[in-house]
Amino acid sequence: MRRLLKKRSRKAGLPPGTPVHIGERRSETTELRLVHYEDGALERRQIAAVEEALPYLARPGITWLHAVGAHDAERLKRLEQLGLHPLVIEDILNTDQRTKFEDYGEYAYLVLKMLSDGTEDAIEIEQISIVLGKNYVVSVEEGPSGAFASVEALIDKDRARVRQSGADYLAYLLLDRVVDNYFIVLERLGERIDALQDELVSGPGPQTLRLLHHLRRETLVLRRSVWPLREVIGGLERERSALIRPETAVYLRDVYDHTIHVVDTIETFREVLSGMLELYMSSSTNRLNEVIKVLTVIATVFIPPTFIASVYGMNFRHMPELDSPWGYPVTWLAMLGLGAGMLAYFRKKRWL
Amino acid sequence: MRRLLKKRSRKAGLPPGTPVHIGERRSETTELRLVHYEDGALERRQIAAVEEALPYLARPGITWLHAVGAHDAERLKRLEQLGLHPLVIEDILNTDQRTKFEDYGEYAYLVLKMLSDGTEDAIEIEQISIVLGKNYVVSVEEGPSGAFASVEALIDKDRARVRQSGADYLAYLLLDRVVDNYFIVLERLGERIDALQDELVSGPGPQTLRLLHHLRRETLVLRRSVWPLREVIGGLERERSALIRPETAVYLRDVYDHTIHVVDTIETFREVLSGMLELYMSSSTNRLNEVIKVLTVIATVFIPPTFIASVYGMNFRHMPELDSPWGYPVTWLAMLGLGAGMLAYFRKKRWL
Amino acid sequence: MRRLLKKRSRKAGLPPGTPVHIGERRSETTELRLVHYEDGALERRQIAAVEEALPYLARPGITWLHAVGAHDAERLKRLEQLGLHPLVIEDILNTDQRTKFEDYGEYAYLVLKMLSDGTEDAIEIEQISIVLGKNYVVSVEEGPSGAFASVEALIDKDRARVRQSGADYLAYLLLDRVVDNYFIVLERLGERIDALQDELVSGPGPQTLRLLHHLRRETLVLRRSVWPLREVIGGLERERSALIRPETAVYLRDVYDHTIHVVDTIETFREVLSGMLELYMSSSTNRLNEVIKVLTVIATVFIPPTFIASVYGMNFRHMPELDSPWGYPVTWLAMLGLGAGMLAYFRKKRWL
Amino acid sequence: MRRLLKKRSRKAGLPPGTPVHIGERRSETTELRLVHYEDGALERRQIAAVEEALPYLARPGITWLHAVGAHDAERLKRLEQLGLHPLVIEDILNTDQRTKFEDYGEYAYLVLKMLSDGTEDAIEIEQISIVLGKNYVVSVEEGPSGAFASVEALIDKDRARVRQSGADYLAYLLLDRVVDNYFIVLERLGERIDALQDELVSGPGPQTLRLLHHLRRETLVLRRSVWPLREVIGGLERERSALIRPETAVYLRDVYDHTIHVVDTIETFREVLSGMLELYMSSSTNRLNEVIKVLTVIATVFIPPTFIASVYGMNFRHMPELDSPWGYPVTWLAMLGLGAGMLAYFRKKRWL
Amino acid sequence: MRRLLKKRSRKAGLPPGTPVHIGERRSETTELRLVHYEDGALERRQIAAVEEALPYLARPGITWLHAVGAHDAERLKRLEQLGLHPLVIEDILNTDQRTKFEDYGEYAYLVLKMLSDGTEDAIEIEQISIVLGKNYVVSVEEGPSGAFASVEALIDKDRARVRQSGADYLAYLLLDRVVDNYFIVLERLGERIDALQDELVSGPGPQTLRLLHHLRRETLVLRRSVWPLREVIGGLERERSALIRPETAVYLRDVYDHTIHVVDTIETFREVLSGMLELYMSSSTNRLNEVIKVLTVIATVFIPPTFIASVYGMNFRHMPELDSPWGYPVTWLAMLGLGAGMLAYFRKKRWL
Repeated sequence: MRRLLKKRSRKAGLPPGTPVHIGERRSETTELRLVHYEDGALERRQIAAVEEALPYLARPGITWLHAVGAHDAERLKRLEQLGLHPLVIEDILNTDQRTKFEDYGEYAYLVLKMLSDGTEDAIEIEQISIVLGKNYVVSVEEGPSGAFASVEALIDKDRARVRQSGADYLAYLLLDRVVDNYFIVLERLGERIDALQDELVSGPGPQTLRLLHHLRRETLVLRRSVWPLREVIGGLERERSALIRPETAVYLRDVYDHTIHVVDTIETFREVLSGMLELYMSSSTNRLNEVIKVLTVIATVFIPPTFIASVYGMNFRHMPELDSPWGYPVTWLAMLGLGAGMLAYFRKKRWL
Repeated sequence: MRRLLKKRSRKAGLPPGTPVHIGERRSETTELRLVHYEDGALERRQIAAVEEALPYLARPGITWLHAVGAHDAERLKRLEQLGLHPLVIEDILNTDQRTKFEDYGEYAYLVLKMLSDGTEDAIEIEQISIVLGKNYVVSVEEGPSGAFASVEALIDKDRARVRQSGADYLAYLLLDRVVDNYFIVLERLGERIDALQDELVSGPGPQTLRLLHHLRRETLVLRRSVWPLREVIGGLERERSALIRPETAVYLRDVYDHTIHVVDTIETFREVLSGMLELYMSSSTNRLNEVIKVLTVIATVFIPPTFIASVYGMNFRHMPELDSPWGYPVTWLAMLGLGAGMLAYFRKKRWL
Repeated sequence: MRRLLKKRSRKAGLPPGTPVHIGERRSETTELRLVHYEDGALERRQIAAVEEALPYLARPGITWLHAVGAHDAERLKRLEQLGLHPLVIEDILNTDQRTKFEDYGEYAYLVLKMLSDGTEDAIEIEQISIVLGKNYVVSVEEGPSGAFASVEALIDKDRARVRQSGADYLAYLLLDRVVDNYFIVLERLGERIDALQDELVSGPGPQTLRLLHHLRRETLVLRRSVWPLREVIGGLERERSALIRPETAVYLRDVYDHTIHVVDTIETFREVLSGMLELYMSSSTNRLNEVIKVLTVIATVFIPPTFIASVYGMNFRHMPELDSPWGYPVTWLAMLGLGAGMLAYFRKKRWL
Repeated sequence: MRRLLKKRSRKAGLPPGTPVHIGERRSETTELRLVHYEDGALERRQIAAVEEALPYLARPGITWLHAVGAHDAERLKRLEQLGLHPLVIEDILNTDQRTKFEDYGEYAYLVLKMLSDGTEDAIEIEQISIVLGKNYVVSVEEGPSGAFASVEALIDKDRARVRQSGADYLAYLLLDRVVDNYFIVLERLGERIDALQDELVSGPGPQTLRLLHHLRRETLVLRRSVWPLREVIGGLERERSALIRPETAVYLRDVYDHTIHVVDTIETFREVLSGMLELYMSSSTNRLNEVIKVLTVIATVFIPPTFIASVYGMNFRHMPELDSPWGYPVTWLAMLGLGAGMLAYFRKKRWL
Repeated sequence: MRRLLKKRSRKAGLPPGTPVHIGERRSETTELRLVHYEDGALERRQIAAVEEALPYLARPGITWLHAVGAHDAERLKRLEQLGLHPLVIEDILNTDQRTKFEDYGEYAYLVLKMLSDGTEDAIEIEQISIVLGKNYVVSVEEGPSGAFASVEALIDKDRARVRQSGADYLAYLLLDRVVDNYFIVLERLGERIDALQDELVSGPGPQTLRLLHHLRRETLVLRRSVWPLREVIGGLERERSALIRPETAVYLRDVYDHTIHVVDTIETFREVLSGMLELYMSSSTNRLNEVIKVLTVIATVFIPPTFIASVYGMNFRHMPELDSPWGYPVTWLAMLGLGAGMLAYFRKKRWL
């Protein structure tokens, strides 16, 4: 099961802005991919160090520097050469960040969580850092998720909107991919909830409760990842950063609506799961009721006659009933009558 | 049972603004109805393509273009010729939208949910898109619900208010119809809750719990559909769009009040249903208590005397009581006394 | 039991502003009472139609037109002659309104709920509409409640404050009466909750749970009626309408405080009732525990010895114990010892 | 037990501003104490009527008029001579007020609740009214609580801060005393909660649940009294009244912090008590589980062997086992084996 | 267990601003450490009284006065010589403060809680007071926690950022250390919750519930300490104090993000613990169900046959079955058939 908190303690006591990686290491190496494009031209290469990107920034057009792997403090520290504040570098390396947006004037820093379906029905969470400058975008992801392949594909097309737009549109595309991924994760989660719901109605087994609990915890994790994004994009839309041009703002509003839709859906999941837990508990209590009624019926029907039979199993010498020829059949009648009478009485009193 | 989320995943990775239909197909074809009216004149026709509507827009008067069927991406894409943003076209086709209002300056886009009672006691949800321009309204619904027939009837009347008013009043009428439908759905839901309440008081059966759960989930779905409309219309009223004239604003306020009334009622339903679940659970526990008391009464009355009878059913050679002529009647007395005494004792201790 | 929603469906599809009565009919006829007063003069009469009131409005002084009965669409529709918007007339007739205040510039419209103790311990809800103009007040109530008799009595007194004040003070007086009524209803509800609390402590009976549930639902209804009044009067106080003079504002603040007090008290009732339900449930579980312990004590004490007795009731030919003269007393000792030992063991383990 | 609401109904129908006492009478007479002080001078006397205070107000220095007893409508009505609005007088007499602050320009009116530990572990609530004028303070308490004795003692000291400060500082001192009292009440309540917590852990008795419920209700009452004070003092601090000088504002901020601290603590108490109730309920269910397991163990071990013994207690003529010399010991083995086997089986299945 | 509230009552009735220590005494003596630094110079000494610090304040550079021990009212009262308001001194001594920030213009006062893992799995809470002046920082902690040793170490380094920055950066460093400590405490708490979660899944023991309750209460305490810090730092960031320079503001935003992250994590812990309690309760109920089913199976299988055996154990003279050679085997068949039949019937009815 996913641990609740990442190890942050190794950073305690270090001066602010010290670049230290926090979190698991999700890729072997830190790969740096550079894409430079203008209206007519496109260049794409793998680079070894951040320094190689600097000449591109001086040229017209948009530069996109994408790093896969967030653990290599040495390499990522060089991002300072783009003018980034040490606290930004620190945050890129610390993968236990809360989703946030920070405008530093010359550039803006956005950190958010990408979700994907992992193995064993657990949702994988990966941290994405996006730095948006005037004419460049730096993005850092923890491992090779391939989530942004479709963005690269878009840039490839000569007449795509992104080729005519600024760095802000590119950043929007990355953001949009992340939010689109939320829908995919939600879709699968929704399917699992629906399946559990069906199971609950048709007849819950011993694993139902555990699965219900597991899904609730997944929803909680989801919510914790997505909820702050709502404020972040909402704030982005309201207090317009100078880095975001008006024609991109329409797209931001769209991704904001998607985020609210995601948040809403998560809340609905939570309520549905709560309702299902209550239904499960109520059904459980009902079944208990039924079983206890069985016990009571048996006790009602058999224990009193057994008492009578025991009485006439006693070995007293002077038991006049024993000698009577009617003793046996009358006792049978008494026993049957007693059982039936009690059943009838309890029925009438609506106890059964 | 209604699935929790529509399939959005087929859209993942496509560039923003790609028109793709999401959701079920609710009508065979996409029908386009055009209504053009001025103070004195009225024209009404079925058109084959959006292009046929363009000449009407150039003429004075109001043009209403109503599309039934939201799945035909090819046809609806042509709405771009009215100057709509690709994101608007995308949203019209995606029937998994959250209720929202977007002001694009030249026109405004409102998407909301229409509810109606479906078969099998489930509430049907249909998406309505309304585009309000200076002198036109475009509305798109998913299937032939007939909800706007009364609006067409109003336009037919020569001296109706709508004939003297602008496109904003027409859009208001459509909105008003949708909200009126909410009341009808609520009314039926309320009746079902009241009936369940009666059933709960008179004596709940095994299906009561399931029905209770079902109604709660319906209420949840309802709330999810209606809740955002509250903010949307509230925002509409506050930050007046230039497309809405002051004389129409009074009507918007009215429909806003209705929406709040709907939201309030849904909240009340939720609380009533929660209270009913609690009552159900408490009654259930009470019944369990009663049944277990029956068990205890029986055990109290019969088990100890049975023990005594068993004792004198033993076959020991030397059991002096067995030979005594008083043995049998005294044993009877002892058994009766023991049962009665225990009952009395537990009564006194208030255990029964 | 009160139904959750009034029939609104008969209005669906009608053009906005159509005057249709919604709700029950609470009085036979619609009675119109007119009171006209100036500093020195007072005139009071029953009128047959709204038109008769028009001359009074042209004269100096304040005119109060009070209608008892909200079902007579024909008659009340004539209020349009005072310049009221059709939507206001529609709202006066629709007794399923949510409490609201609307400022139309020339006049303001306030609709709220009056509560009173009805028969069968249910709270009666009646809708009150108040229209405040420059020099007139129109008030409409559903039935002859007599709630405003004390206001008429006040006007009767020559030197009362109301005679020196404007129409706004008269409207305030009506509002104040309605809010005062809330306290009376709350007082009775509080007494019933206190009585139930006492019953809960002294020993709950089978009707306790039902009464608890009933009171919770009453509180819910109350809350739904009063809650919006809080915002309404609060808003009234903040964004001063031109119709309300500063010297009346102090009184409005007072009635606002009362409303908050009512709302607070309702919330307290809700929490008290929730606490009582929890106490009831916990006590119930405790009693169940006690009863089951009785069962266990009996089983512990009697079932094992009964087994031993049964053993020596077997009819095997070769049972050496049976022939021993010590067999019987030793068996008794064994049986007593077994029962006592088990009891002691369970006691020690704190299972009993 | 404290009743939930005071009798307000006797006021219904009276014109606004009618001085009527609502609440219990807490002191025999209404005592009026007057303190007048300047930097160098101090005068203190008991007065018979409000009129005697008027000359002091005309002199330089600060006048403090303190009334003990809020039931004497006749006497307190004379406060009008200080220029108080009739609604203020009405509110002073009505001891069922919600905490509030009202600025009337010339003077301000603050009403709040003083708490103290009463007899029988119930918290006593008393209403304090404070009127702050330019150079005077009027305070009214319901009974002789002695809460303000320390303020009088402070004034006695020639060089105390209060002697150099204005009426606002005196009002602050009174307010501060009331809030200080909250801490004392909270302290005792906290001790009782801690004691109950210990009792819960060491072993709850039958009175635990009742005490838990009682403490929750006390906390609810507390919260209802203190909560509004938070907004009141917060508002006081924000929108500075002209009656409060900047140097006093620092002290108000201090008392505001205390109030928030009180509110926070009450919320913590509420959560702690909720957690304790849940713990109590869970422990209760656990104990039930244990007891039922005892029942099951006994039934498992003894009922099947008893059945076997009963079989061989039958009196059929042809029962070959009875004549076998091995019959008896084999039956014993069978009975022991059956009991042990079932126990083992259930253990293995983890049912026990 | 930690008591809920500290003894504040000894302060009741004292004039505001009286320096009285409230809380436990956590160190033997009050130690005063003075650090004075400029870009090139650094001086560090232990001082005996606040007065010794005054000359340093007159010199250029930053002075940091750190007091360990908050109980010595005499000594700490002398802080007044730095121009601190008596209320600030009072608050430093009262260790039962709520986290708050107060701007006094010349200086600002921040009080917050430092958390650390204490013995016996309980979180230790210590109060930290920070006074930020133009060129000095005064910090007071209750005991020798050593939490700020790393800050001293930073100052030691000649080229550290802090040596080039103002007093505000030093104050930030102290604040940052406190918030970093929260993460360490959270990390350990998270580990304990995870361990409990594992225990809950693998099989809860009797101590699970108590531990669950303990962790919930710890989380509650944590939340109470940290929650107000969120507003405090948030407010600090928004309404910039003149004491905080723009270049430090970036760092404050960083520590604000950390605080929000802490608050979020605590909320998540709360929800996780609630979910675990619910899972525990549901599993408990399920186990009860299982055990009761065992009881029912046994009763079903053995009680009815036992009744039959008892019947033929009766000693009536005229029992024809007893003499029949088929009596015994037929009875066996009947008994087996009865048990099996009932089992089958209940299975079919899904009662078992």
